Amino acid sequence: MDNGLLVVISGPSGAGKGTICRRLREVMRDLKVSVSATTRKPREGEKEGESYFFIDEEEFVNRINNDEFLEYARVYGNYYGTPKEAVFKQLQDGNDIILEIDIQGALQVKKNCPRGVFIFILPPSLKELQNRIEGRGTDSKDAILKRMQCAYDELNYAFEYDYVVLNDQVDEAVEKIQCIINAEKNRAIRKNAIINKIREV
Amino acid sequence: MDNGLLVVISGPSGAGKGTICRRLREVMRDLKVSVSATTRKPREGEKEGESYFFIDEEEFVNRINNDEFLEYARVYGNYYGTPKEAVFKQLQDGNDIILEIDIQGALQVKKNCPRGVFIFILPPSLKELQNRIEGRGTDSKDAILKRMQCAYDELNYAFEYDYVVLNDQVDEAVEKIQCIINAEKNRAIRKNAIINKIREV
Repeated sequence: MDNGLLVVISGPSGAGKGTICRRLREVMRDLKVSVSATTRKPREGEKEGESYFFIDEEEFVNRINNDEFLEYARVYGNYYGTPKEAVFKQLQDGNDIILEIDIQGALQVKKNCPRGVFIFILPPSLKELQNRIEGRGTDSKDAILKRMQCAYDELNYAFEYDYVVLNDQVDEAVEKIQCIINAEKNRAIRKNAIINKIREV
Repeated sequence: MDNGLLVVISGPSGAGKGTICRRLREVMRDLKVSVSATTRKPREGEKEGESYFFIDEEEFVNRINNDEFLEYARVYGNYYGTPKEAVFKQLQDGNDIILEIDIQGALQVKKNCPRGVFIFILPPSLKELQNRIEGRGTDSKDAILKRMQCAYDELNYAFEYDYVVLNDQVDEAVEKIQCIINAEKNRAIRKNAIINKIREV
């Protein structure tokens, strides 16, 4: 059997990664999601092993030292990380997995899984990105300015990805990503098994 | 404007390249076809510049020496070749071009156009391939045996292509190739223009 695909959806904050991933999972029901580990305390309604794996800091640092994460980051004093073993297990079972992740995280994943499919979500314009971040109403003016500068710089990383998908219409973007996933299943590098099978006359 | 895509459809004789290309052009009406040059005499109904560009051997050899072909071959005493300039002109105009071509030809094209999209059409099995070649009724038993040995060896070249598409159901194969072409339009390497455009606030 062919291994599953690791699909990494990434891009600047405000590009629309979250919405795209939700919609993608609605139309591709077989896509699995990786559950992250975190040292953050559970919020109301969050379930162990579904929302996150909740572990303490000592355990998290142990796992970092054992190289057990595909990627990890410390955000506002809490650790977040993608457990390697769970992801690899799914892929070996032939399941496709989707990871929604920021750019620094995606670059870490690429080192560990160069055969993943790395998709950079592009906002339609920096002006529109600013509108979206302002629309959330969660950031101060200074914070927005900083985010915009960051987004501008982050566009440089697009070329380290396999694909760049413009998110001006969510439906179109989701359709393009579906196409990319289906196309990637036909990559020659993933076809050893079938070519050997055909040889059996 | 983005450059067009050069899509190379290739694979062993009998894999079904011809049928796939015809169907693909029916569903993707914007796909252009490259017209080959040949030293073969025109058959009835063939039109200069549509079926082929008919030129004499001296002219053909001149063009070989001037490096004017993406690929060429001599088959049963006649030359056949894909003119470089016509293909490049179409791509620069933003048109996608499809080339249906044997494996040796595709490998020559890859040297000249590494950014092309190289698709290897895989017969469902060598047994089925034999049935198809026998079904044509054009080959002797010895010729068929030789073709089969050749097809077996040619499967090794699949890994030099970008994609491998199994042709057990023509409809499915055509759909997969459509998906590949659409996905390839989102490759990061082809997205310089749009990323620069987004930077213009």
